[in-house]
Amino acid sequence: MNRFGIIGFGRFGQLAARHLRDYFDVIVTDARDIAEDAARVGVRTAALAEVAGCDTVMLAVPVQALEHTLADIASHVRPGALVIDVASVKMLPARWMTEALPASVDIVATHPLFGPQSARRGLAAQPLVICPVRGEAHHRVAEFGRKLGLKVSVTTPEEHDREMAYVQALTHLIGRTLVNIRIPDEELKTDSYQHLLELCALIGDDSEELFFAIQNLNPFAQEITQQFIGQANGLLERSLKAGNRSVAAEA
Amino acid sequence: MNRFGIIGFGRFGQLAARHLRDYFDVIVTDARDIAEDAARVGVRTAALAEVAGCDTVMLAVPVQALEHTLADIASHVRPGALVIDVASVKMLPARWMTEALPASVDIVATHPLFGPQSARRGLAAQPLVICPVRGEAHHRVAEFGRKLGLKVSVTTPEEHDREMAYVQALTHLIGRTLVNIRIPDEELKTDSYQHLLELCALIGDDSEELFFAIQNLNPFAQEITQQFIGQANGLLERSLKAGNRSVAAEA
Repeated sequence: MNRFGIIGFGRFGQLAARHLRDYFDVIVTDARDIAEDAARVGVRTAALAEVAGCDTVMLAVPVQALEHTLADIASHVRPGALVIDVASVKMLPARWMTEALPASVDIVATHPLFGPQSARRGLAAQPLVICPVRGEAHHRVAEFGRKLGLKVSVTTPEEHDREMAYVQALTHLIGRTLVNIRIPDEELKTDSYQHLLELCALIGDDSEELFFAIQNLNPFAQEITQQFIGQANGLLERSLKAGNRSVAAEA
Repeated sequence: MNRFGIIGFGRFGQLAARHLRDYFDVIVTDARDIAEDAARVGVRTAALAEVAGCDTVMLAVPVQALEHTLADIASHVRPGALVIDVASVKMLPARWMTEALPASVDIVATHPLFGPQSARRGLAAQPLVICPVRGEAHHRVAEFGRKLGLKVSVTTPEEHDREMAYVQALTHLIGRTLVNIRIPDEELKTDSYQHLLELCALIGDDSEELFFAIQNLNPFAQEITQQFIGQANGLLERSLKAGNRSVAAEA
């Protein structure tokens, strides 16, 4: 059985291990003590060097730790191995992997657009984005993704990041803000408000680290989030002015 | 058959007429020419004075025009008649109706939390808020609402407006902003983003007038929308700072 190494055993690493353990000999590692988590998921832990020496290596560390992790594993990855990342942005990780890993190593950048919350009822039709970076291994990654029931898209890191400025940066800004101001589950509610409550439920458990990565490491994010805030402010200003006109007209 | 007058034949007035014409002799009026719209809906038009003289009078004008309309109809409303408004805020309309209408007239303030878009598949389970203002007619309004399949809640104008600061002012600020910046229907999308797209679809056709009313005429709205914008700005600032720390640590 092919050996599949997972570096980083947080929320996504654990979700991946659960779905991969039937197909591969999965071994995992993390900077923190993960003995208990690994036992619960039913996979073996090992030192970083051993995990980095697997046939396939998945980097599931926070994207902020990715460059550092790549420097640590570069000398342990075997020629012919496949390295995959799962970060929520793709331009920077694709560049970091290309620069850090030996030319003998295949590279596929991926973004699973789901997590433990959205995949709680299974992987069926959950989106997986695949960006070919080096070599031809992206074909078999796509094939395996489809075998798991995922909805696989193949695109470039740049096109991915452009779309994710809306799909993630803007969406998580709105959702995280609503979670922080604790919008109440009102008795009187509309279908529209229900969408906001469900957005909160979907992203409420996401880490602050992921939020910062989505905002900071996507080169297109800031333009879109600033556009949103600028437009919202403009709307409230126009609204206030309209209000004054209305009162004046009635007086 | 009881005569039911609808003053204001816009999107909501037309929706109401469609659902009421089987139960009442519905006559409608509006400042603009509504001959064609009335014919399409299958109701009769009449002058303001005649419509205001019906057994039940529904005020379906934009809330900004409500005070003015009340002044126009006050002398035409019959003793014992019932006057209902359907505005999206309730404290100001309840006060305006109480002040403008003769003591012999019953008053019920209502807020149907739906429109042509959300009720396109029928009224079943759509929310109707009822605020008793003067007299006991709210009981029969509630009964009739339930007969139509609506989910009826009875509350005070103040409690209504407090809840609607979230359910409407905040939700419409977010939705209208997303519509204005034209968030794209991306190929790669998440369940979370789908909620934003559906929010846009639900409120995209609402009038600017309604938006301004929801923001300006609800005394609790501004506090909540400002809290949202302040929190979103704070999040982006913290995010930028965290990003700089991360880059510094990697350098």
